[in-house]
Order: sequence, then structure tokens, then C-alpha cells
Amino acid sequence: MTGRQRSTDEQRDRVAIVGASMTEFGQRDGEWIMDLLAEAGIECLEDAGVNATAVDHLYVSNMTSGEFEGMTGVMNALVHDLGAMPAYTQRVDQTSSSGGAGIYAAWQSITSGASDMTLLVGGEKMTHKTTGESTDIIASIGHPVEYKHGVTLPSFAGLTARHYLEQFDVPRESLAKVAVKNHKNGVDNPNAQFQKEVDLETVLESPIIADPLRLYDFCPVTDGSAALLFCPESVAREYTDEYAVIAGVDGATDTHVVHERDDPTVMQGVVESGKGAYEMSGYGPDDIDVAELHDMFTILEFLQMEGLGIAEQGEAWKLVEDGYTERDGELPINTSGGLKSKGHPLGASGVAQGVEIYEQLVGEAGPRQVDADVGLCCNVGGFGNCVITTIMEAAQ
Amino acid sequence: MTGRQRSTDEQRDRVAIVGASMTEFGQRDGEWIMDLLAEAGIECLEDAGVNATAVDHLYVSNMTSGEFEGMTGVMNALVHDLGAMPAYTQRVDQTSSSGGAGIYAAWQSITSGASDMTLLVGGEKMTHKTTGESTDIIASIGHPVEYKHGVTLPSFAGLTARHYLEQFDVPRESLAKVAVKNHKNGVDNPNAQFQKEVDLETVLESPIIADPLRLYDFCPVTDGSAALLFCPESVAREYTDEYAVIAGVDGATDTHVVHERDDPTVMQGVVESGKGAYEMSGYGPDDIDVAELHDMFTILEFLQMEGLGIAEQGEAWKLVEDGYTERDGELPINTSGGLKSKGHPLGASGVAQGVEIYEQLVGEAGPRQVDADVGLCCNVGGFGNCVITTIMEAAQ
Repeated sequence: MTGRQRSTDEQRDRVAIVGASMTEFGQRDGEWIMDLLAEAGIECLEDAGVNATAVDHLYVSNMTSGEFEGMTGVMNALVHDLGAMPAYTQRVDQTSSSGGAGIYAAWQSITSGASDMTLLVGGEKMTHKTTGESTDIIASIGHPVEYKHGVTLPSFAGLTARHYLEQFDVPRESLAKVAVKNHKNGVDNPNAQFQKEVDLETVLESPIIADPLRLYDFCPVTDGSAALLFCPESVAREYTDEYAVIAGVDGATDTHVVHERDDPTVMQGVVESGKGAYEMSGYGPDDIDVAELHDMFTILEFLQMEGLGIAEQGEAWKLVEDGYTERDGELPINTSGGLKSKGHPLGASGVAQGVEIYEQLVGEAGPRQVDADVGLCCNVGGFGNCVITTIMEAAQ
Repeated sequence: MTGRQRSTDEQRDRVAIVGASMTEFGQRDGEWIMDLLAEAGIECLEDAGVNATAVDHLYVSNMTSGEFEGMTGVMNALVHDLGAMPAYTQRVDQTSSSGGAGIYAAWQSITSGASDMTLLVGGEKMTHKTTGESTDIIASIGHPVEYKHGVTLPSFAGLTARHYLEQFDVPRESLAKVAVKNHKNGVDNPNAQFQKEVDLETVLESPIIADPLRLYDFCPVTDGSAALLFCPESVAREYTDEYAVIAGVDGATDTHVVHERDDPTVMQGVVESGKGAYEMSGYGPDDIDVAELHDMFTILEFLQMEGLGIAEQGEAWKLVEDGYTERDGELPINTSGGLKSKGHPLGASGVAQGVEIYEQLVGEAGPRQVDADVGLCCNVGGFGNCVITTIMEAAQ
């Protein structure tokens, strides 16, 4: 193992991201969690031109390999598949925000001096189960009192959306416009599960799932994987001239019992993790040029915009109506297509958010490219039970 | 959230352990993973006199809450049960070494400046399943090619023990003496699953499980939880005069496919993680006054003694024969009773090893107390697939 000289000043420097990759998201029949993790891991190392033997720490963001595939120890299997032995490895689980938690763990591994080169691979294989089975496994995230009463994440989304629309007198169409925007962005993402536009009518006339939310207000069930490679900024230029830096990162929790929250339209975990990431970075909401938000349900995009100070409470919908969050708007949100059209393989999603922001900052986003020096990702676990916010900036 | 001033010199100091607790290990009928985690977490905070709201990061070491109980999101549930919101939380999974991985994660969280106060709770609830079901879930740790052929961890232990006995011409009785010693130590641990001595004949005549290993060469299936509380050493005296410090910690992997190893009697993960922990601490094997080794199978105690340089290869058994590792010997090993008599609730075990070393270093080990300034724990995942070695010392 390298990276053991823990207390030098060089290792106290910032954390750079020098490689990124994601697999195709979608229904990956005949492939399994290990195939997906290995694909993203190998591609990420190739992207950075780094040999697997240089990796000190390997984190795997994954929630459910045991429940979905009867396979545990996936992190050790990935060390094996990549040839990264004797790299330290660990599985990071923070339910739907496991990917963001992996970014935070990677940041800590480099900043503490424990590692000089940390590979993070997030992934999930889900589509071989029925939607009912998937929903049941995902519902086990919640507090048992909610789970036993059948209150799944989609039902919380419906209840919250209803409350939001009524409290702030918001037109139903505004929620649908989030889906329309993110599907439009997904058309230009060759790895997105849905690379097709949808129009407002399609969203508004799709089947009701959890009133007032309809099918197109929800992300799909997805297989996929994504990876990021981290090192101290002081050595980043040994690998690449174009890299991104983690300017701020923080995680926070909200109540595990959702009905205990004072105001269901405020996600306290978003507020607190955002505050931490802003403080650490020195940036505020006005400095963000591009953002990936956790649009598992359309309503969540509004709640995160508001929790992060991008919009006032109850007013995020106006920015969507004004085109502020379109790819050519003031602050493009979910240029990747978001969870909505890109798909949501639980442990991969937070990592894939990081991949999109990284690609935007280093100018590798192809047809999705926007002008950005500072980007933000917000990854939400449960129904806001745990949230990680990460702010990255382009290297100077 | 506190702890966000990440770059001050004070936070670059060492990591102190200021509180510890463990529940009774054994068959905890009618209690579930959340009961066990909450019990250890509350007791640990009380032990340190710290309020839950002071906790910035809460790590839960747990491998199988989803597989064993159909409950995920246990880390968020624990934040709720302790009243630690908005503390950041994450589940740490490194199979049987999840507890040691939790110590490593906690160390990184403090050293990186991400947290000023980190609570680690490890736990597992297993006894409600049949032994066959448990063994099957645990076997899913291994590489699929091994799992599909029915090669479980106990069978690796039997194969390796046979090889070791023949290669180094070791009497079978030496293995049994590990069980006898650890059961003897467990008598004085009020939280141990088995608080009873066993004699050599009982071990040697117990039913064969994986030849040459017999029932008493194996740890039991166990429910239980344990916790440790970490903060920067610079503030440790605000909480207590007696505390321990993490002098060194490192993790490493061996091949995930066990038969790919050059020498089955050498656990490369033990060697590498031990090397890292020794280097970081400045200590060597001769400096260790007390150690907790991962005696899931008696043979593992030998392999770890050798991998860590406590004995030469093939000679650990001589130290056991000589009484060197007895409680009143030169280097007491598994004063807690070890996994063998204390029990092995997967995610709890590495944390409980840390609890024993902490209690030995701060003089709270009661009838098990030995004279110790420096202690070591070695926590093994899979069949040595991943290993964490931690060295602690008493505060000066």
C-alpha cells in the first residue's frame, strides 16, 4: 500500500477528480452487478491513464447487491476484477444517496492522508426483479412504522406534491415541465435510459401513480454503474491538465420518520448539507453554474432548488416556467437528463451526478456542454432522510 | 452540523477514543437490529458523557440487515433513535470486518476534519435464522465460483488447517488450545455469549464440522452490538482523563478467489494491513502488550499471529503451547474471550475488539485487566479477503 505518509502538507491540499466514467444506464439483461461495476471501474482508470495497482482505496457505492442478487462482498470482488489488490476496499451504503456518500468517503480518504489514489465505483442491478419486488426492497429504507403501513417513497412524493401545489398555489403543469426538460436533456446523453423527448400532454395524461403524480413524474428502475477517480490536487497534473476539484462537500440527515417533519416542503437534509458545502467552498447559490439534482420524483427538483437557496420557498416552479433551469438558461439543472430520463440505479446515481458535473467542468460534455466553472450535485437518500451535497470547480 | 472548519492544525492531531460500550452478545430473542444498535449507541454516549446532538458523523458497521431482517436504512433509523439529527450517517460494509472498517472510516472522518465527534456502532442480528440460512448468507461473501460450488468459509478453514498442521508438523491439540484459552478468558466477560470453560477433551471430541476442525474450533452465530466514540485528541480531555488514541490503522485486501493465493497459510491482507498500522504508529510486534485477533476459526488466530509478526511462520502454535498468549503471558491474545467465546455478530465484532483494547488501555477491563500501554486489533473479512489492523495506545 502506498499513501501512508499521512501528515505531510502536500496531502492537506484539495481533492482532485482526474477520471470519470459511466456505463449505459437501462435494462442490462444477462449482466450482473459485478459486470457493471467492473465496466465502469476499468473505463474510469483508462480515462485517467492510471493503472489499477496505483489505487490505494476502492469504495463501492451500492445499496442492495445482497437483496437483489444474493451476492455480498462485491467490493472484494471488484478489487479482484480490476487487479487492484492489496487496495483497501469498503462498501458505502446510504440507500439512494450511496453514490454521494461515496464521494464524501473518497474526499475523506484523500484529505486524511489515508489514500493517494481513491477509486469510487457506484452501481446497482435492479431490472431483473419485478417493479413490485424493487419497490418493496426500496421501501425497506423507511422507518418500520411507515414500511408496515405500506407508505412507500412514491406515496410520500404524491403527498408532498399535493401539499406543495396547494400551499404555494402552483400549477400542476410546472411539475410536468421538470420531466419535459430533463427528458429533453437526456436526448443528448448516449448513456441515458430514455433518450427521447416527451411533451407536456404525455406527462399530464400518463397513468396516476401517487396522486397528483403520474408515471412521467417518476424515474425508472435501472441497471448501471459510474465511477470517479480522486487524488490530491498537488499530483493531479501528473495525470491530466484538465481536472476538477472538490470545493465543498457535506452530508446531513432529516427525521427518519417523515411525518415528524415540521414542514413537509422543506428537506432539512438538503438545507444542512448545502449549508456545509457552501461554507466549505466559499461559494453561494449564485456562484453555481450547473447542477445535478436528485429528481427521483419531479417534486424533488423543486424542493432541492429551494433547500439549496437557488429559489425561495414555494417559488422554484417559477424558475422552471421561465426557462431558468434549461440547458441554455441561467442555471442549467440536470443537463445529464437527471434520474428522470438517465435512470436511477441507486448506488450509481450520486456517482453519475458527479460524472456529469466533472464532464461539464472539464469540457467533455459533448452536445450537453454548458459554460461552467462551478457545479453542484445533490444526492438524496430515502425521502430526504440523508442528503449529500458536493460542489466542484474546474482546476485553474 | 459542527466540525466544518476543516483545515485547522488542531484537527490534524491524533484521533482519541473517549467512550466504548457493548451489549450482551448471544441469542437476543424478540430484539432486532435497531434495538441492539440503539442500546450500544446510547450506552457509549453515556459512557463518555456526550450528548447525541454533539455527534457529527454516525457510522453503522453492519453487513446484512437487509438479508437477515428485510430492513435497510438502519443508519438513518439509528440517527432517529439516538436523536442525533442532523448528523451525517453511513453504513459501512466490509463483510465480517465491517467493524474494523468502521474504525478506519471514523479515523478518516476525524483526521480529515469532516467531523469533530464520530460515533461508530456495529451490530448484527442473526440467531433468528437457521444455521443453514446464516451460513448461506455469509457464504455469499465469497467469489461466485466458490459460492456456487458450496465452498463456504468453514470449509476454507478446514482445508487451511489441514495444510497448516501437515506443512509445519503441528499437533492437532495446539489448535484446540486456542479454543480452551479463549473460553477461559470469556468466563470473565459478562457480555460474552459463552461464559464457561471448556477442556481439551471436549474440543477434541466435539463433532467434526470441516475436518480437521470440530465444533469447538468455530465461533457461534450471535446477536449483538458494540460502539466507540471518537474525537480529536486535542479536545479529548474535555470529556475524560482516561482515553485511548489510535496510533496506527490500515486496511488491505487479499485475492477474492482463495485458491489463487500462493501460500494458503499466509494471509496477505493481515501482512499488508499490519505493515501499514505498524508504520503509521512507529510500533512493531514487540511493542504490543495485548491483542484481539479474529478467531472466527481457531486456525485464524495462528495465521494472524504469524502475519502480524508476533510469531514466525509455522510457529504460532509454540507460543500457544508455552502460555505466551494466556492472560498472564507475555502477550495476552483475546482477553475478551475472542469471537470464539464472546460470539461473532458480524458488524459488531471489529468494534467489540476495539472496545476490549480500549478498556484494557484505560484500565476498565475488570477481572480481565492486563498491564498494557499499546494494544492491537485485527479484524478479518471473508477468508482474509479484507483485513483491518488497528493499533491503539493509552493517553499519556
